[in-house]
Amino acid sequence: MIFSDPASVAVVGASDDPAKWGHWLARGALVGHDRRAVHLVNRGGGAVLGQPTVRSLSELAEAPELVVLAVPAAHVPAVVDEALAAGVRGFVGITSGIDDRVIRRIRDAGARLLGPNCLGVFDAATSLHLAWGRFQAGSLGVVSQSGQVGLEIAGLAASSGTGVSRFVSVGNQADVTATEALLDLVSHDLTTVVGVYLESFGAGIVAAMSELRAAGKPVVLLTVGTSVAAREAARTHTGALTSSSDVVDAACRRAGAVRVTTPAALVDLAAVLTSGVPRGGRVGVISDSGGQGAIAADLAVAAGLTMPVLSVVDGLPAGASTRNPIDLAGTGEQDLANYARAVEVLARGGEVDTVVLSGYFGSYGPDAPSLEEAEVAVAARICSLARETGVTVVVHSMREDSAAVRTLRTGGIPVQHTIERAVAALGHASRLGRNSLEVVPRTTSATPFRPGYLAARELLSFVEFPSAHAVTTAADVTATALKGPFALKADWLPHKSEHGGVRIGLTEPTAAFEEMRARLGPGTYVLEEMDTREHTVELIIGAKRDHSFGPVVLVGSGGVHAELFRDTAIELAPVTPATARDMLARLTCAPLLSGWRGAPAPDVTALAEVIARISETLAARSDLAEIELNPVRVGPDGVLAVDALIIPSEETVNDTGGQRVA
Amino acid sequence: MIFSDPASVAVVGASDDPAKWGHWLARGALVGHDRRAVHLVNRGGGAVLGQPTVRSLSELAEAPELVVLAVPAAHVPAVVDEALAAGVRGFVGITSGIDDRVIRRIRDAGARLLGPNCLGVFDAATSLHLAWGRFQAGSLGVVSQSGQVGLEIAGLAASSGTGVSRFVSVGNQADVTATEALLDLVSHDLTTVVGVYLESFGAGIVAAMSELRAAGKPVVLLTVGTSVAAREAARTHTGALTSSSDVVDAACRRAGAVRVTTPAALVDLAAVLTSGVPRGGRVGVISDSGGQGAIAADLAVAAGLTMPVLSVVDGLPAGASTRNPIDLAGTGEQDLANYARAVEVLARGGEVDTVVLSGYFGSYGPDAPSLEEAEVAVAARICSLARETGVTVVVHSMREDSAAVRTLRTGGIPVQHTIERAVAALGHASRLGRNSLEVVPRTTSATPFRPGYLAARELLSFVEFPSAHAVTTAADVTATALKGPFALKADWLPHKSEHGGVRIGLTEPTAAFEEMRARLGPGTYVLEEMDTREHTVELIIGAKRDHSFGPVVLVGSGGVHAELFRDTAIELAPVTPATARDMLARLTCAPLLSGWRGAPAPDVTALAEVIARISETLAARSDLAEIELNPVRVGPDGVLAVDALIIPSEETVNDTGGQRVA
Repeated sequence: MIFSDPASVAVVGASDDPAKWGHWLARGALVGHDRRAVHLVNRGGGAVLGQPTVRSLSELAEAPELVVLAVPAAHVPAVVDEALAAGVRGFVGITSGIDDRVIRRIRDAGARLLGPNCLGVFDAATSLHLAWGRFQAGSLGVVSQSGQVGLEIAGLAASSGTGVSRFVSVGNQADVTATEALLDLVSHDLTTVVGVYLESFGAGIVAAMSELRAAGKPVVLLTVGTSVAAREAARTHTGALTSSSDVVDAACRRAGAVRVTTPAALVDLAAVLTSGVPRGGRVGVISDSGGQGAIAADLAVAAGLTMPVLSVVDGLPAGASTRNPIDLAGTGEQDLANYARAVEVLARGGEVDTVVLSGYFGSYGPDAPSLEEAEVAVAARICSLARETGVTVVVHSMREDSAAVRTLRTGGIPVQHTIERAVAALGHASRLGRNSLEVVPRTTSATPFRPGYLAARELLSFVEFPSAHAVTTAADVTATALKGPFALKADWLPHKSEHGGVRIGLTEPTAAFEEMRARLGPGTYVLEEMDTREHTVELIIGAKRDHSFGPVVLVGSGGVHAELFRDTAIELAPVTPATARDMLARLTCAPLLSGWRGAPAPDVTALAEVIARISETLAARSDLAEIELNPVRVGPDGVLAVDALIIPSEETVNDTGGQRVA
Repeated sequence: MIFSDPASVAVVGASDDPAKWGHWLARGALVGHDRRAVHLVNRGGGAVLGQPTVRSLSELAEAPELVVLAVPAAHVPAVVDEALAAGVRGFVGITSGIDDRVIRRIRDAGARLLGPNCLGVFDAATSLHLAWGRFQAGSLGVVSQSGQVGLEIAGLAASSGTGVSRFVSVGNQADVTATEALLDLVSHDLTTVVGVYLESFGAGIVAAMSELRAAGKPVVLLTVGTSVAAREAARTHTGALTSSSDVVDAACRRAGAVRVTTPAALVDLAAVLTSGVPRGGRVGVISDSGGQGAIAADLAVAAGLTMPVLSVVDGLPAGASTRNPIDLAGTGEQDLANYARAVEVLARGGEVDTVVLSGYFGSYGPDAPSLEEAEVAVAARICSLARETGVTVVVHSMREDSAAVRTLRTGGIPVQHTIERAVAALGHASRLGRNSLEVVPRTTSATPFRPGYLAARELLSFVEFPSAHAVTTAADVTATALKGPFALKADWLPHKSEHGGVRIGLTEPTAAFEEMRARLGPGTYVLEEMDTREHTVELIIGAKRDHSFGPVVLVGSGGVHAELFRDTAIELAPVTPATARDMLARLTCAPLLSGWRGAPAPDVTALAEVIARISETLAARSDLAEIELNPVRVGPDGVLAVDALIIPSEETVNDTGGQRVA
């Protein structure tokens, strides 16, 4: 690909002044001069970094394949025209403010543009260094919508020892998109884990992350905007409850990726994942200080990891405490090999997926040089154990750097100087999804959309509702064969309770009907039996289209609790009933669904089926924008939806000439 | 004090082998040889670190004031006896496993012991370095129950530039306690902020932290055990809902201290507090990258800080975005002074309490040496602005170290290499309490404790309950003048609903009485009117004694929500009504208490009064172990407690010969 291994490059705007971008780009380009022709272009001529320059591309005998644009925006059009005329196939647009017409000319000529307003590209496999900044070769592929965040990631990756395999700053994505840059990493051999910073999500991003995961290269996604209140007014509770970060997390789960919130968290997790995805979230903590072990244990539990009680502890040094955390106390100091022995006991014991070693290890060599050799040997032994057993090991050392620390890092074991970074990385790893792009091929309702509650009940024929009748006159109400207590609803109102369009608990509904009809006017009303079952739990189920990720489905605690306590679970739609059960298990109110304090357990199987069908319906029908069942009541004998609301998509409204009731 | 500036010291067990503790302690002791006589004692004799040694303390002409014990435990008794006979006044017990009888001999002789099993003591003001480890002199006083955690704190304080003013490893606290070591810092001039690691809490710890705060030296407390499930079976919901970390947080609020969970968080917060406690939690973020600014903003909001929309933005460079976060874009690079200008606009604008500068600043010098001088000048300007305005400034720099970074640190501005550490410190600072040891002198109920619901109602005469009568026969029930619907309760059962001792919603209570009496036997039953008011909110109010911190009071969401959603607020008891209102405001369900969706607001003033009175009652009456009102219903016209339970303290039970109903 032209942006990963061009046969020749030219840096236009090369400079000898270290305070200028053109200097750094020229310096980087020259790194690859053994592999490709590197031309430096400077209007003023003269030498740059001791190399001759040309004044313009036209002075070159042959057109370079790739041109780096590091000149002021005003000069870009002429440079691009000259380059295209000479047959240049690709541009790296460092310059910001490149005119749209220039971008069009590039694309029309069949050439490609990275950026503009980007920091360039780096590829460790091909000595391609056309970017601002320093890079250490390694295994992390970086794609970033912000150049500087990308650089921060690359810098942290250098100090963690992980290094960068490829760095692509996509800038404004006028041509090459982040999705494309990600897909390009699928076959990039050096890359074993991918870090991506995105502020917006283009089409195909979930598929690209999923493809990378399938290729054994898990994606760590850094994004922003969680602190920004949703701007768009919500039309349903589902809409109000669906934050953008929840949807991003759902997209990550679907793609087998995971979201983090800082560059350091991205790099720390990448350092863990370079040796493979941890098998699970069970952690064994080893320390040579009871205090440090307890701090690590508290952090692990807070990060959602589990600290199993150990039964296989044969081989631990006498004097060490054998609970989890294991406290080596003075036994590590007595014999450094005890650090490796403790790791071995955990790694071979089968009771944990990951090991955290926290404390003094890594400091012996610097403090007592006579111990350095022994400490390095123990470090190497720990690396072998991790490789042999497949157990993930991370180390927190009170030393930022030492021979033992370097041995661990070289051997694939992440070493952190603060315990929170070591544990947080494992916590994030345990949230990595399973790469499960779900396909749910079942057919869904074909009933056309019509407004109103009764029509929604009809469209959602797979959901059980209480028995109900349309009533338009008091005589209809009096003549009902339904059993009380009753609910009375104005069929056409989407938000009934806020407009006085619902009355519940009626034993004598005729008077209520007359009052409501007098107030709201003639129309279709719904007389409905109330759900009087015992041991029911109230929930909300909804589905909507996210502007970035498409259909999503939500389930949450009923009543005020979804809203007050943010107790919701969200996934990309459609979901299978199995995924729907996972969603229910994630709710804080989940204990209510397995029979709270001896109450009979609600029918969770039926509930999961409803969630799945709602998700399928919204995913399959582009004429619907939102579906909401609120509340849904699940009891031991099944699910009853007590209200339903469907919002058609804008096109549907226009197509049918219908009017949306506000 | 003998542990801060002894006139003379002896290290018993001094060694020339750098792998031995006695080597490091001797080396440290010699640091102070200009200020005090330093004697090295080694059984084998010979030189240590080029200094002569003696074979035993008895060879010294005059007894040292302070003796460091760095010999195996078996040798300690003889050394101590010799030292006490010579008139030694203090011991630093590095050795672990010192016999209790030896400790008693030290105390009986009127001498003092630090430790045993400690890492020693360091005082920057007096060149006292009787501890394992390296220390950089600075302003953080460290008291640690774990030597190694203390060392980790000291090491991180050195790299942050904060440094350590005094370090006291209290070890097993056989004589000198952590509380005593803390109180000793009140008058320690070099110390401006205190970090303490504790695994248990001795008497007076809240008072000591409070006294430090009053002296302008806020305390940052690191503790562990939040991941450990409560071991003691709870006798009330209040007990089940009161986690130890909640109580520690309450103790910190009361003392004007704050709890953190890692050594790095402690040191990062200390670095902020050395320049004073931030005035509030309003943050202005400045970055030269939109991405980094957005990352910082998301973290700030997640940390509980607020990001005000800025209106005072005059003076920001043209081209910078003036929202919060402020994005300098390229304007910082164009003129480094723009970094200081942006800080000045925020610091003088009066709209924020703290400023976070995140991004490239600190990297210019290393990348382009011609810019170093200018960058250092801008850094110095930022330090002056922080000092002049009293606004707290923290910096996140992509460089770990540079001349500008050092200038900032020397000028009192914390610089972090990861943005999460910068923002987390501000988040913790915003949780620093106000140093408010509350004294609530009001008189409380003198009614003696008797078991049962009616007796509890009587004891808690300041709480309103629904009208009720004791009934023992069906005739009593039939003759009632109370109005239905009724509740019927077995007076003597503490956990009525779990034992079938409560029926509610009764309109015809006689049959229910007969059924319950047939089942539970004769006794006192309570017929009670039910609370049928509209617009009520259900809560739980409780108070209990914590084994470390004494009386605490709790308020939480009612029903299953306190438990499921952990929606509780806890403070040390007693609290004033004002503090009780703060507790209510902290609840996740607080929106229900200010009139949810247009409903009339419940009487929060009356509710706060009940919380305060419950807290006073438990605090004042040592005969009571727990008080619980569950549920309490608050409506627009006041508070009704719908059930009450009082658990007497063990002594009360024994004193009165009463029997606790299980």
